[in-house]
Amino acid sequence: MKYGVLGTGQVGQELSNKLVALGNEVCMGSRSQDSKEAKTWLERAGEKGKIGTFADAARFGEIIVNCTQGAHSLEALRLVAKKELNGKILIDVANPLDSSRGMPPVLSICNADSLGESIQREFPEAKVVKTLNTVNCRVMTDPGRVPGDHDMFICGNDDTAKKTVTALLREFGWKSIVDLGDITNARATEQLMPIWIRLWGKLGTADFNFRIVSDA
Amino acid sequence: MKYGVLGTGQVGQELSNKLVALGNEVCMGSRSQDSKEAKTWLERAGEKGKIGTFADAARFGEIIVNCTQGAHSLEALRLVAKKELNGKILIDVANPLDSSRGMPPVLSICNADSLGESIQREFPEAKVVKTLNTVNCRVMTDPGRVPGDHDMFICGNDDTAKKTVTALLREFGWKSIVDLGDITNARATEQLMPIWIRLWGKLGTADFNFRIVSDA
Repeated sequence: MKYGVLGTGQVGQELSNKLVALGNEVCMGSRSQDSKEAKTWLERAGEKGKIGTFADAARFGEIIVNCTQGAHSLEALRLVAKKELNGKILIDVANPLDSSRGMPPVLSICNADSLGESIQREFPEAKVVKTLNTVNCRVMTDPGRVPGDHDMFICGNDDTAKKTVTALLREFGWKSIVDLGDITNARATEQLMPIWIRLWGKLGTADFNFRIVSDA
Repeated sequence: MKYGVLGTGQVGQELSNKLVALGNEVCMGSRSQDSKEAKTWLERAGEKGKIGTFADAARFGEIIVNCTQGAHSLEALRLVAKKELNGKILIDVANPLDSSRGMPPVLSICNADSLGESIQREFPEAKVVKTLNTVNCRVMTDPGRVPGDHDMFICGNDDTAKKTVTALLREFGWKSIVDLGDITNARATEQLMPIWIRLWGKLGTADFNFRIVSDA
Protein backbone atom coordinates (compact mmCIF):
# COMPACT_ATOMS: atom_id res chain seq x y z
CA MET A 1 0.00 0.00 0.00
CA LYS A 2 1.13 3.58 -0.65
CA TYR A 3 0.85 5.97 2.29
CA GLY A 4 1.17 9.73 2.36
CA VAL A 5 2.25 10.82 5.81
CA LEU A 6 1.74 14.51 6.49
CA GLY A 7 4.16 15.79 9.10
CA THR A 8 7.84 15.28 9.83
CA GLY A 9 7.75 15.43 13.61
CA GLN A 10 8.13 12.53 16.02
CA VAL A 11 4.64 11.21 15.25
CA GLY A 12 5.15 11.34 11.48
CA GLN A 13 8.55 9.68 11.75
CA GLU A 14 7.32 6.93 14.06
CA LEU A 15 4.34 6.08 11.87
CA SER A 16 6.36 6.32 8.66
CA ASN A 17 8.99 3.96 10.04
CA LYS A 18 6.36 1.46 11.08
CA LEU A 19 4.54 1.63 7.75
CA VAL A 20 7.80 1.07 5.87
CA ALA A 21 8.73 -1.79 8.21
CA LEU A 22 5.40 -3.40 7.35
CA GLY A 23 6.33 -3.29 3.66
CA ASN A 24 4.45 -0.18 2.58
CA GLU A 25 5.73 2.70 0.49
CA VAL A 26 5.64 6.02 2.32
CA CYS A 27 5.93 9.58 1.06
CA MET A 28 6.56 11.89 4.01
CA GLY A 29 5.16 15.34 3.32
CA SER A 30 6.24 18.61 4.81
CA ARG A 31 5.37 22.26 4.42
CA SER A 32 8.44 22.89 2.28
CA GLN A 33 10.44 20.73 -0.11
CA ASP A 34 13.52 21.32 2.04
CA SER A 35 12.54 19.81 5.35
CA LYS A 36 15.70 18.74 7.14
CA GLU A 37 13.73 16.25 9.22
CA ALA A 38 12.24 14.63 6.10
CA LYS A 39 15.67 14.37 4.44
CA THR A 40 17.15 12.76 7.53
CA TRP A 41 14.24 10.33 7.66
CA LEU A 42 14.66 9.48 3.96
CA GLU A 43 18.30 8.50 4.48
CA ARG A 44 17.21 5.85 6.96
CA ALA A 45 13.99 4.80 5.21
CA GLY A 46 15.56 3.13 2.20
CA GLU A 47 13.91 2.50 -1.14
CA LYS A 48 10.38 2.38 0.26
CA GLY A 49 10.63 6.02 1.35
CA LYS A 50 9.95 9.24 -0.51
CA ILE A 51 9.66 12.84 0.60
CA GLY A 52 7.87 15.87 -0.78
CA THR A 53 5.44 18.62 0.07
CA PHE A 54 2.13 17.95 1.80
CA ALA A 55 0.57 18.03 -1.69
CA ASP A 56 3.13 15.53 -3.04
CA ALA A 57 2.51 13.16 -0.15
CA ALA A 58 -1.27 13.41 -0.52
CA ARG A 59 -1.01 12.75 -4.26
CA PHE A 60 1.27 9.75 -3.66
CA GLY A 61 -0.73 8.09 -0.92
CA GLU A 62 -3.64 5.74 -1.36
CA ILE A 63 -4.13 6.31 2.36
CA ILE A 64 -3.18 9.60 4.02
CA VAL A 65 -2.11 10.01 7.65
CA ASN A 66 -2.38 13.40 9.30
CA CYS A 67 0.55 13.70 11.71
CA THR A 68 0.80 17.47 11.61
CA GLN A 69 0.43 19.52 14.80
CA GLY A 70 -3.28 19.45 15.45
CA ALA A 71 -3.68 23.15 16.12
CA HIS A 72 -2.29 23.75 12.60
CA SER A 73 -3.61 20.69 10.77
CA LEU A 74 -6.33 22.52 8.88
CA GLU A 75 -3.80 25.06 7.57
CA ALA A 76 -1.52 22.21 6.51
CA LEU A 77 -4.32 20.31 4.80
CA ARG A 78 -5.37 23.45 2.92
CA LEU A 79 -2.03 23.20 1.10
CA VAL A 80 -3.40 20.01 -0.48
CA ALA A 81 -5.90 20.19 -3.35
CA LYS A 82 -9.21 18.64 -2.31
CA LYS A 83 -9.10 16.26 -5.25
CA GLU A 84 -5.94 14.65 -3.85
CA LEU A 85 -7.93 13.55 -0.81
CA ASN A 86 -11.28 12.80 -2.41
CA GLY A 87 -12.31 9.18 -1.91
CA LYS A 88 -9.18 8.41 0.13
CA ILE A 89 -8.93 7.33 3.73
CA LEU A 90 -7.47 10.12 5.83
CA ILE A 91 -6.29 8.80 9.19
CA ASP A 92 -6.22 11.69 11.65
CA VAL A 93 -3.97 11.00 14.63
CA ALA A 94 -3.53 14.64 15.65
CA ASN A 95 -4.79 16.55 18.68
CA PRO A 96 -5.46 20.29 18.51
CA LEU A 97 -3.18 21.20 21.41
CA ASP A 98 -2.57 24.89 21.98
CA SER A 99 0.38 25.77 24.21
CA SER A 100 0.23 29.48 23.40
CA ARG A 101 -1.66 30.14 26.64
CA GLY A 102 0.92 28.28 28.74
CA MET A 103 1.36 24.75 29.98
CA PRO A 104 -0.35 22.40 30.17
CA PRO A 105 -1.86 23.13 26.75
CA VAL A 106 -5.56 23.58 26.14
CA LEU A 107 -7.44 22.45 23.04
CA SER A 108 -7.83 24.90 20.16
CA ILE A 109 -11.04 23.12 19.10
CA CYS A 110 -13.20 21.12 21.50
CA ASN A 111 -16.51 20.48 23.21
CA ALA A 112 -19.12 21.08 20.45
CA ASP A 113 -16.54 20.43 17.71
CA SER A 114 -13.28 18.60 17.17
CA LEU A 115 -10.34 18.50 14.81
CA GLY A 116 -11.58 15.26 13.27
CA GLU A 117 -14.96 16.78 12.48
CA SER A 118 -13.38 20.00 11.20
CA ILE A 119 -11.26 18.05 8.74
CA GLN A 120 -14.24 15.97 7.63
CA ARG A 121 -16.32 19.14 7.07
CA GLU A 122 -13.57 20.81 5.05
CA PHE A 123 -12.83 17.67 3.01
CA PRO A 124 -16.27 16.08 2.71
CA GLU A 125 -15.13 13.56 0.08
CA ALA A 126 -12.27 12.24 2.21
CA LYS A 127 -12.97 9.33 4.53
CA VAL A 128 -11.68 10.68 7.80
CA VAL A 129 -10.89 8.08 10.45
CA LYS A 130 -9.81 9.35 13.85
CA THR A 131 -7.63 6.99 15.84
CA LEU A 132 -4.29 6.60 17.64
CA ASN A 133 -4.58 10.14 19.05
CA THR A 134 -5.00 8.91 22.62
CA VAL A 135 -1.52 7.43 23.03
CA ASN A 136 2.09 8.49 22.64
CA CYS A 137 3.48 7.87 19.15
CA ARG A 138 5.75 5.06 20.31
CA VAL A 139 2.74 3.28 21.79
CA MET A 140 0.78 3.92 18.56
CA THR A 141 3.08 1.62 16.63
CA ASP A 142 4.03 -0.70 19.49
CA PRO A 143 1.11 -1.13 21.90
CA GLY A 144 3.06 -3.85 23.72
CA ARG A 145 5.07 -1.05 25.37
CA VAL A 146 2.07 -0.85 27.71
CA PRO A 147 1.58 -4.16 29.52
CA GLY A 148 -1.70 -6.07 29.61
CA ASP A 149 -5.05 -5.10 28.15
CA HIS A 150 -5.76 -1.54 27.03
CA ASP A 151 -7.93 0.07 24.40
CA MET A 152 -7.58 1.95 21.14
CA PHE A 153 -10.52 4.07 20.00
CA ILE A 154 -11.58 4.59 16.41
CA CYS A 155 -14.33 6.67 14.85
CA GLY A 156 -15.38 7.88 11.43
CA ASN A 157 -18.36 8.05 9.10
CA ASP A 158 -17.27 5.35 6.63
CA ASP A 159 -17.50 1.78 7.89
CA THR A 160 -15.33 0.33 5.11
CA ALA A 161 -12.62 2.90 5.86
CA LYS A 162 -12.77 1.99 9.54
CA LYS A 163 -12.39 -1.70 8.66
CA THR A 164 -9.27 -0.94 6.62
CA VAL A 165 -7.79 1.16 9.42
CA THR A 166 -8.72 -1.47 12.01
CA ALA A 167 -6.75 -4.04 9.99
CA LEU A 168 -3.77 -1.67 10.01
CA LEU A 169 -4.11 -1.19 13.78
CA ARG A 170 -4.05 -4.96 14.18
CA GLU A 171 -0.84 -5.07 12.14
CA PHE A 172 0.55 -2.52 14.60
CA GLY A 173 -0.32 -4.97 17.39
CA TRP A 174 -3.56 -3.47 18.73
CA LYS A 175 -5.87 -6.08 20.19
CA SER A 176 -8.77 -4.12 21.66
CA ILE A 177 -10.15 -1.57 19.21
CA VAL A 178 -13.32 0.27 20.28
CA ASP A 179 -15.40 1.73 17.45
CA LEU A 180 -17.19 4.72 18.96
CA GLY A 181 -19.24 5.49 15.84
CA ASP A 182 -19.20 8.46 13.48
CA ILE A 183 -16.62 11.25 13.32
CA THR A 184 -18.42 13.40 15.92
CA ASN A 185 -16.93 10.99 18.45
CA ALA A 186 -13.56 12.60 17.78
CA ARG A 187 -14.69 15.12 20.40
CA ALA A 188 -14.58 12.38 22.98
CA THR A 189 -11.10 11.10 22.21
CA GLU A 190 -9.50 14.52 21.65
CA GLN A 191 -10.84 15.57 25.05
CA LEU A 192 -8.84 12.76 26.61
CA MET A 193 -5.78 14.93 26.05
CA PRO A 194 -6.15 17.05 29.20
CA ILE A 195 -6.00 13.99 31.44
CA TRP A 196 -3.44 12.25 29.23
CA ILE A 197 -1.03 15.18 29.59
CA ARG A 198 -1.47 15.31 33.36
CA LEU A 199 -1.02 11.54 33.74
CA TRP A 200 2.11 11.74 31.59
CA GLY A 201 3.57 14.20 34.08
CA LYS A 202 2.39 12.21 37.07
CA LEU A 203 3.51 8.78 35.85
CA GLY A 204 6.81 10.04 34.44
CA THR A 205 6.37 7.91 31.33
CA ALA A 206 4.44 8.15 28.07
CA ASP A 207 4.05 4.37 28.01
CA PHE A 208 0.54 4.24 29.39
CA ASN A 209 -2.96 3.94 28.06
CA PHE A 210 -6.59 3.86 29.02
CA ARG A 211 -8.51 0.67 29.57
CA ILE A 212 -12.28 0.65 29.82
CA VAL A 213 -13.23 -1.80 32.54
CA SER A 214 -16.77 -3.22 32.66
CA ASP A 215 -18.54 -6.53 32.88
CA ALA A 216 -20.37 -5.79 29.62
CA MET B 1 -19.45 13.21 60.73
CA LYS B 2 -22.15 15.66 59.59
CA TYR B 3 -22.57 15.99 55.84
CA GLY B 4 -24.54 18.55 53.86
CA VAL B 5 -25.51 17.04 50.53
CA LEU B 6 -26.65 19.60 47.96
CA GLY B 7 -29.01 18.06 45.43
CA THR B 8 -31.92 15.65 45.59
CA GLY B 9 -31.40 13.82 42.30
CA GLN B 10 -30.08 10.32 41.84
CA VAL B 11 -26.51 11.33 42.69
CA GLY B 12 -27.54 13.16 45.86
CA GLN B 13 -29.74 10.27 46.97
CA GLU B 14 -27.11 7.62 46.28
CA LEU B 15 -24.39 9.50 48.16
CA SER B 16 -26.71 10.44 51.03
CA ASN B 17 -27.78 6.82 51.45
CA LYS B 18 -24.19 5.66 51.52
CA LEU B 19 -23.11 8.33 53.99
CA VAL B 20 -26.00 7.43 56.32
CA ALA B 21 -25.22 3.73 55.94
CA LEU B 22 -21.66 4.50 57.06
CA GLY B 23 -23.04 6.08 60.23
CA ASN B 24 -22.92 9.75 59.28
CA GLU B 25 -25.64 12.36 59.71
CA VAL B 26 -26.80 13.85 56.44
CA CYS B 27 -28.83 16.95 55.69
CA MET B 28 -30.04 16.81 52.07
CA GLY B 29 -30.46 20.31 50.67
CA SER B 30 -32.69 21.39 47.84
CA ARG B 31 -33.63 24.64 46.16
CA SER B 32 -36.92 24.82 48.06
CA GLN B 33 -38.00 23.60 51.46
CA ASP B 34 -40.73 21.51 49.80
CA SER B 35 -38.72 19.12 47.66
CA LYS B 36 -40.79 15.99 47.14
CA GLU B 37 -37.64 13.99 46.39
CA ALA B 38 -36.02 15.12 49.65
CA LYS B 39 -39.14 14.26 51.67
CA THR B 40 -39.32 10.80 50.10
CA TRP B 41 -35.62 10.30 50.86
CA LEU B 42 -36.11 11.40 54.47
CA GLU B 43 -38.81 8.79 55.07
CA ARG B 44 -36.30 6.06 54.20
CA ALA B 45 -33.24 7.68 55.77
CA GLY B 46 -34.26 7.29 59.41
CA GLU B 47 -33.00 9.33 62.30
CA LYS B 48 -29.62 10.14 60.71
CA GLY B 49 -31.36 12.09 57.94
CA LYS B 50 -32.45 15.70 57.74
CA ILE B 51 -33.67 17.87 54.89
CA GLY B 52 -33.66 21.58 54.22
CA THR B 53 -32.63 24.25 51.75
CA PHE B 54 -29.17 24.34 50.18
CA ALA B 55 -28.31 26.91 52.87
CA ASP B 56 -29.62 24.65 55.66
CA ALA B 57 -27.61 21.71 54.36
CA ALA B 58 -24.45 23.78 54.05
CA ARG B 59 -24.89 25.13 57.57
CA PHE B 60 -25.46 21.62 58.94
CA GLY B 61 -22.58 19.92 57.21
CA GLU B 62 -19.01 19.74 58.42
CA ILE B 63 -18.33 18.43 54.92
CA ILE B 64 -20.43 19.54 51.94
CA VAL B 65 -21.05 17.46 48.82
CA ASN B 66 -22.12 19.19 45.61
CA CYS B 67 -24.50 16.82 43.82
CA THR B 68 -26.44 19.50 41.97
CA GLN B 69 -26.59 19.49 38.18
CA GLY B 70 -23.19 20.76 37.14
CA ALA B 71 -24.44 23.30 34.61
CA HIS B 72 -26.41 24.93 37.46
CA SER B 73 -24.11 24.24 40.42
CA LEU B 74 -22.80 27.79 40.68
CA GLU B 75 -26.36 29.18 40.82
CA ALA B 76 -27.23 26.63 43.49
CA LEU B 77 -24.14 27.41 45.54
CA ARG B 78 -24.89 31.13 45.37
CA LEU B 79 -27.96 30.40 47.48
CA VAL B 80 -25.53 29.52 50.28
CA ALA B 81 -23.79 32.26 52.27
CA LYS B 82 -20.04 32.08 51.76
CA LYS B 83 -19.47 31.84 55.50
CA GLU B 84 -21.33 28.51 55.57
CA LEU B 85 -18.67 27.03 53.31
CA ASN B 86 -15.59 28.84 54.60
CA GLY B 87 -12.99 26.43 55.92
CA LYS B 88 -15.12 23.41 55.03
CA ILE B 89 -14.36 20.62 52.57
CA LEU B 90 -16.63 20.91 49.54
CA ILE B 91 -16.61 17.66 47.57
CA ASP B 92 -17.64 18.45 44.00
CA VAL B 93 -18.90 15.40 42.17
CA ALA B 94 -20.79 17.31 39.45
CA ASN B 95 -20.11 17.68 35.74
CA PRO B 96 -21.23 20.79 33.84
CA LEU B 97 -23.26 18.90 31.23
CA ASP B 98 -25.39 21.01 28.91
CA SER B 99 -28.09 19.15 26.97
CA SER B 100 -29.74 22.34 25.69
CA ARG B 101 -27.93 21.98 22.37
CA GLY B 102 -29.07 18.38 21.90
CA MET B 103 -27.69 14.97 22.78
CA PRO B 104 -25.10 13.92 23.62
CA PRO B 105 -24.57 16.92 25.89
CA VAL B 106 -21.59 19.24 25.68
CA LEU B 107 -19.85 20.88 28.63
CA SER B 108 -21.02 24.33 29.73
CA ILE B 109 -17.51 25.04 31.10
CA CYS B 110 -14.38 23.32 29.84
CA ASN B 111 -10.93 23.46 28.28
CA ALA B 112 -9.29 26.50 29.94
CA ASP B 113 -11.65 26.29 32.92
CA SER B 114 -13.77 23.77 34.79
CA LEU B 115 -16.63 23.61 37.23
CA GLY B 116 -14.30 22.61 40.04
CA GLU B 117 -12.11 25.65 39.46
CA SER B 118 -15.12 27.94 39.09
CA ILE B 119 -16.46 26.85 42.46
CA GLN B 120 -13.04 27.27 44.07
CA ARG B 121 -12.73 30.80 42.61
CA GLU B 122 -16.18 31.82 43.81
CA PHE B 123 -15.69 30.26 47.27
CA PRO B 124 -11.97 30.81 47.90
CA GLU B 125 -12.21 29.86 51.58
CA ALA B 126 -13.84 26.51 50.85
CA LYS B 127 -11.59 23.49 50.32
CA VAL B 128 -12.90 22.19 47.02
CA VAL B 129 -12.04 18.57 46.26
CA LYS B 130 -13.10 17.24 42.88
CA THR B 131 -13.69 13.52 42.73
CA LEU B 132 -16.22 10.77 41.87
CA ASN B 133 -17.38 12.74 38.79
CA THR B 134 -15.96 10.19 36.36
CA VAL B 135 -18.29 7.32 37.26
CA ASN B 136 -22.01 6.67 37.53
CA CYS B 137 -23.44 7.40 40.99
CA ARG B 138 -24.02 3.73 41.79
CA VAL B 139 -20.35 3.03 41.05
CA MET B 140 -19.36 6.06 43.17
CA THR B 141 -20.63 4.38 46.31
CA ASP B 142 -20.01 0.78 45.24
CA PRO B 143 -16.92 0.53 43.03
CA GLY B 144 -17.16 -3.28 43.17
CA ARG B 145 -19.97 -3.02 40.59
CA VAL B 146 -17.11 -2.73 38.11
CA PRO B 147 -14.93 -5.85 38.23
CA GLY B 148 -11.17 -5.81 38.71
CA ASP B 149 -8.85 -2.83 38.98
CA HIS B 150 -9.96 0.65 37.99
CA ASP B 151 -9.15 4.17 39.07
CA MET B 152 -10.73 7.08 40.87
CA PHE B 153 -9.26 10.53 40.35
CA ILE B 154 -9.04 13.26 42.96
CA CYS B 155 -7.77 16.82 42.82
CA GLY B 156 -7.86 19.95 44.93
CA ASN B 157 -5.64 22.62 46.41
CA ASP B 158 -5.72 21.46 50.04
CA ASP B 159 -3.74 18.32 50.82
CA THR B 160 -5.38 17.73 54.19
CA ALA B 161 -8.82 17.99 52.60
CA LYS B 162 -7.76 15.48 49.94
CA LYS B 163 -6.56 13.10 52.66
CA THR B 164 -9.93 13.30 54.41
CA VAL B 165 -11.81 12.69 51.15
CA THR B 166 -9.45 9.86 50.22
CA ALA B 167 -10.29 8.16 53.52
CA LEU B 168 -14.00 8.52 52.68
CA LEU B 169 -13.40 7.05 49.20
CA ARG B 170 -11.68 4.09 50.82
CA GLU B 171 -14.74 3.63 53.04
CA PHE B 172 -16.80 3.56 49.84
CA GLY B 173 -14.55 0.75 48.62
CA TRP B 174 -12.18 2.59 46.28
CA LYS B 175 -8.76 0.97 46.11
CA SER B 176 -6.89 2.94 43.44
CA ILE B 177 -7.15 6.69 43.99
CA VAL B 178 -5.04 8.89 41.71
CA ASP B 179 -4.24 12.37 43.05
CA LEU B 180 -3.81 14.55 39.97
CA GLY B 181 -2.78 17.66 41.92
CA ASP B 182 -4.48 21.01 42.37
CA ILE B 183 -8.02 21.96 41.42
CA THR B 184 -7.05 23.00 37.87
CA ASN B 185 -6.92 19.26 37.18
CA ALA B 186 -10.73 19.25 37.37
CA ARG B 187 -10.50 20.22 33.69
CA ALA B 188 -9.02 16.85 32.95
CA THR B 189 -11.61 14.75 34.75
CA GLU B 190 -14.64 16.79 33.67
CA GLN B 191 -13.48 16.40 30.07
CA LEU B 192 -13.76 12.64 30.47
CA MET B 193 -17.53 13.12 30.25
CA PRO B 194 -17.72 13.18 26.43
CA ILE B 195 -16.16 9.74 26.15
CA TRP B 196 -17.94 8.47 29.26
CA ILE B 197 -21.34 9.31 27.77
CA ARG B 198 -20.49 7.63 24.46
CA LEU B 199 -19.14 4.51 26.16
CA TRP B 200 -22.29 4.34 28.28
CA GLY B 201 -24.36 4.19 25.11
CA LYS B 202 -22.02 1.73 23.48
CA LEU B 203 -21.61 -0.64 26.43
CA GLY B 204 -25.28 -0.48 27.42
CA THR B 205 -24.35 -0.22 31.09
CA ALA B 206 -23.20 2.52 33.44
CA ASP B 207 -21.17 -0.01 35.41
CA PHE B 208 -17.83 0.77 33.83
CA ASN B 209 -14.78 2.84 34.65
CA PHE B 210 -11.39 3.91 33.38
CA ARG B 211 -8.18 2.18 34.31
CA ILE B 212 -4.84 3.74 33.60
CA VAL B 213 -2.52 0.99 32.44
CA SER B 214 1.26 1.48 32.59
CA ASP B 215 4.35 -0.22 33.88
CA ALA B 216 5.21 2.83 35.99
